[in-house]
Amino acid sequence: MRVSPLAPKSFPHIPSIEGVEFATASVGIKHTGRTDVMLAKISPGATIAGVFTRSATRAACVLDCQEKIGHDTPQGAAILVNSGNANAFTGSAGQASVDRICAAVSAKLGLPSRAVFTSSTGVIGEVLPDEKITKSLTELSQSFKAAGIEAAANAIMTTDTFAKGSSKSLRIEGKTVTIGGIAKGSGMIAPDMATMLAYIFTDAKIGYSDLQSLLGNSANKTFNCITVDSDTSTSDAFICAATGASNVDVSSNIEFASALEGVMLDLAQQIVRDGEGATKFVKIAVSGAASQADAHKVAMSIANSPLVKTAIAGADPNWGRIVMAVGKSGAKADRDRLSIWFGPHLVAKNGWVASSYSEEVGAEYMQQNNLSIRTDLGVGGSSATVWTCDLTHGYIKINADYRS
Amino acid sequence: MRVSPLAPKSFPHIPSIEGVEFATASVGIKHTGRTDVMLAKISPGATIAGVFTRSATRAACVLDCQEKIGHDTPQGAAILVNSGNANAFTGSAGQASVDRICAAVSAKLGLPSRAVFTSSTGVIGEVLPDEKITKSLTELSQSFKAAGIEAAANAIMTTDTFAKGSSKSLRIEGKTVTIGGIAKGSGMIAPDMATMLAYIFTDAKIGYSDLQSLLGNSANKTFNCITVDSDTSTSDAFICAATGASNVDVSSNIEFASALEGVMLDLAQQIVRDGEGATKFVKIAVSGAASQADAHKVAMSIANSPLVKTAIAGADPNWGRIVMAVGKSGAKADRDRLSIWFGPHLVAKNGWVASSYSEEVGAEYMQQNNLSIRTDLGVGGSSATVWTCDLTHGYIKINADYRS
Repeated sequence: MRVSPLAPKSFPHIPSIEGVEFATASVGIKHTGRTDVMLAKISPGATIAGVFTRSATRAACVLDCQEKIGHDTPQGAAILVNSGNANAFTGSAGQASVDRICAAVSAKLGLPSRAVFTSSTGVIGEVLPDEKITKSLTELSQSFKAAGIEAAANAIMTTDTFAKGSSKSLRIEGKTVTIGGIAKGSGMIAPDMATMLAYIFTDAKIGYSDLQSLLGNSANKTFNCITVDSDTSTSDAFICAATGASNVDVSSNIEFASALEGVMLDLAQQIVRDGEGATKFVKIAVSGAASQADAHKVAMSIANSPLVKTAIAGADPNWGRIVMAVGKSGAKADRDRLSIWFGPHLVAKNGWVASSYSEEVGAEYMQQNNLSIRTDLGVGGSSATVWTCDLTHGYIKINADYRS
Repeated sequence: MRVSPLAPKSFPHIPSIEGVEFATASVGIKHTGRTDVMLAKISPGATIAGVFTRSATRAACVLDCQEKIGHDTPQGAAILVNSGNANAFTGSAGQASVDRICAAVSAKLGLPSRAVFTSSTGVIGEVLPDEKITKSLTELSQSFKAAGIEAAANAIMTTDTFAKGSSKSLRIEGKTVTIGGIAKGSGMIAPDMATMLAYIFTDAKIGYSDLQSLLGNSANKTFNCITVDSDTSTSDAFICAATGASNVDVSSNIEFASALEGVMLDLAQQIVRDGEGATKFVKIAVSGAASQADAHKVAMSIANSPLVKTAIAGADPNWGRIVMAVGKSGAKADRDRLSIWFGPHLVAKNGWVASSYSEEVGAEYMQQNNLSIRTDLGVGGSSATVWTCDLTHGYIKINADYRS
């Protein structure tokens, strides 16, 4: 598998987070010769919050997490993730698998079952061979390492072309607080794995409702603002565990909120950079919208348009397709107030091509790997930004030239 | 240009419609050596109704038509269509072009300007060279032919790979009523031409509000139920002219309504069969939905999903992607009541793969060119059907491997 041309040079250095340890194993769920299970052990008293897919056909493990999130974990908690099988659309067998895994982890680590969270990512519709996972728990429980986060990032990949990680440390009240996270998603060869999973750990001290509201707010500006192909998975899950080991209360701390959101955004953008077949990373900014919802709607309409995405793939400064995507979005717009920029270049203004614009300038700009397209609707004061990638032969190759 | 593998064998025989004549010309708007203007002359007293794109960035000619539709045309009417340039997003120059064309047609044919309707299809953002069109009016006005509808269908194509026509004749009150129509759309090489245009003519007698309401209702079951790539054009227009020459009043005639809808559906499906890069024609039916809107939403979510469309291109019976598309649609759904059929084969039932289903049967079915995918949501009594095509390397080639 060729690594995405948009990948970061290497996996970042992520300091250990006090109160979190990782273990990984190769259990052969779908492929052998690679790790496919990761187990994270979280210290007693940690706060766990999460955000999950809104899909009406979500997987058993997602429903199980949603039920458990919000309870205290005085004895500690665990997160187990397997790749290679999504345990989605598997009827009652799905929940039975989740229950068996949680019971086994619970027994092995001495935790209540409701403190065990699981995610599964891979093929939809096949029963999860959960005994392969439960059999590996002895091995896993003997190999916990505080420095194991990069191995964990590798174990949760399906056909991602690189492991995704991010971290930030900040000084609060003279002490250091560290945030470290991993994610997987959007590099897909076997079908039905358009899943996004992300896990962030921190030694900050924060209560559940504060952490949950931070996650919700920031997810709306990060993970919910990326798109590769407009297809929402059955298994999206993002869980954050705050161990409190630093003894720094960050409940209303703006710097912490901003650092956490920064880590989320970094992981979200890495997922786009590993988008199927992607050769260009594109920031789509919309301003001058009548409402926040309208701004997001227009930005997503542009980011999801196959005609816009193929134009970008072809390095074609095709601003007519941007106009089309604005028009179809359903948001309030006025053709004669619309302005469009490709990077620093004003392309269209007040409903027509700008006199200062030349096709040559646009064509040269579009050659770059990192693009920025801005649209001002001129009908209000709201704005939004989303990130996407281009639509290439690589996407078709990955998803059509293949038999499941 | 290779003709779509899904094209009908030949252009259908369409009888002349009394009260309608056609003329075409080659004026060289974008390409030479092909006809690119068609003019239809409609007899005095005809009823004209129409349905247009709801895009917020619609073209000047669309706005002009919408303003004119609904007025009587006691002196007759005319429809002029050019291909090669969409006259969209051209600021005030756009309406000026429309005005000059309408004034010239009005003078040449002795009609009030408000009885002249125009459509333009082609590149967005370039000023329409309207003098090329107005200069051709003398030639056009000398070559009207009742039998010119096939030539008209050819003149309005952009990069369609075949001309699209359909007709139906029916006996009402012992007399024959004829409906004939043409359309263009969805075969695209030069960018920015994702437009659908359709024109239907009939010698039936019907008032404006009756005809308009027939069009609106039927458009919701035909043209509004097709999708190639989810991108809505700035220029979609569908106009129907009823000359009344048969002297058969069809105001509340169900057979006429059904025949008209049949012609609309045939044209709509021909557009899908000429979808960019299409190799498969796919009917998506949804039943058991909580509401009509939900049924349509789920059907369109499946039909527009890049992952579903690429699976179809690869002849992959990937029902997990159908589950995903149901889940993301936002419609009411219950994973454990979902059933899916590929043609006659039950694939999934009550949230899991059907025991009678085998991957081999599904894979063999998916080899066909004409596919039918049915989903029952099991949560209500509403249903909807839409038509789409697959997403192939051909689509990427047409839209990305090209510089505008």
